[in-house]
Amino acid sequence: MTAFSINPIGTLHTPWHTIRDCPRNGRQPDPAPVCTAVVLPEFQDGLTGLEGFSHLILLYWLDLATQPKLIFTPPFDPHPRGVFSTRAPFRPNPIGLSVVAFDGFDGPATLKVRYLDCIEGTRLLDIKPYLATTDSQPSATMGWLDLHATRNSNSPRE
Amino acid sequence: MTAFSINPIGTLHTPWHTIRDCPRNGRQPDPAPVCTAVVLPEFQDGLTGLEGFSHLILLYWLDLATQPKLIFTPPFDPHPRGVFSTRAPFRPNPIGLSVVAFDGFDGPATLKVRYLDCIEGTRLLDIKPYLATTDSQPSATMGWLDLHATRNSNSPRE
Repeated sequence: MTAFSINPIGTLHTPWHTIRDCPRNGRQPDPAPVCTAVVLPEFQDGLTGLEGFSHLILLYWLDLATQPKLIFTPPFDPHPRGVFSTRAPFRPNPIGLSVVAFDGFDGPATLKVRYLDCIEGTRLLDIKPYLATTDSQPSATMGWLDLHATRNSNSPRE
Repeated sequence: MTAFSINPIGTLHTPWHTIRDCPRNGRQPDPAPVCTAVVLPEFQDGLTGLEGFSHLILLYWLDLATQPKLIFTPPFDPHPRGVFSTRAPFRPNPIGLSVVAFDGFDGPATLKVRYLDCIEGTRLLDIKPYLATTDSQPSATMGWLDLHATRNSNSPRE
């Protein structure tokens, strides 16, 4: 099948400078630090109308995940798992996804967000409004991950 | 910034053959038809461990959205909106995202899913397990879209 080309629309800024520093997920740090998403000037007009959304979906490129692994054994689990049943970064297309809280603008092209878990300088690919009517499934079951789920004060399901 | 290259991992099969046929969102049709995601043989091992997840996040390539529009006036709204405050397909990186119900396998590399809204033959980029602990925000506010939100019997927030 044909390959597609994607271009970053901006950059994510977080407090974590190495993969080892990153939290297991963005809701683990308590309080969750405010991070920023800085959009390139040529895409700034696309941010019109973002006010009033409490949450966003950010897609970003997991640059450091160069070699995909289809099956691996997670550090916290004894069984080999397929990468599509995990949120691990070393995917065939290393696109990361976070549902973040949107705390408003800090300048015309800078968004303040919480609940990121990626490293400083990660390239941003897309911003989507989070729609509770189609994106929220509070009673979804989590398969093998259910035993290992991290639940803390930031976990919205609690 | 550097461009990145992505390669489809499979194909989505839906009942809709033109954009005009597609529902406004995947939860509008009632009952929602069962669609399939067929993963290429070389990525099949990555599906190991997917059993037991009730919902998945599918990322796919919106091929027909060739020309991005940063600002546009939605058909159901009188005001111009920025594309990042919408789920419209003509984005700088036309990556579509759906939270789907996972109804199990129909063959070793074919997933049965509900709540897609894209056209037949759409290229699949990634499959992620939906995690209620980080992905579900039932009380998220929806900004300008709140007035226009489609709520029906398939809307999980209801």
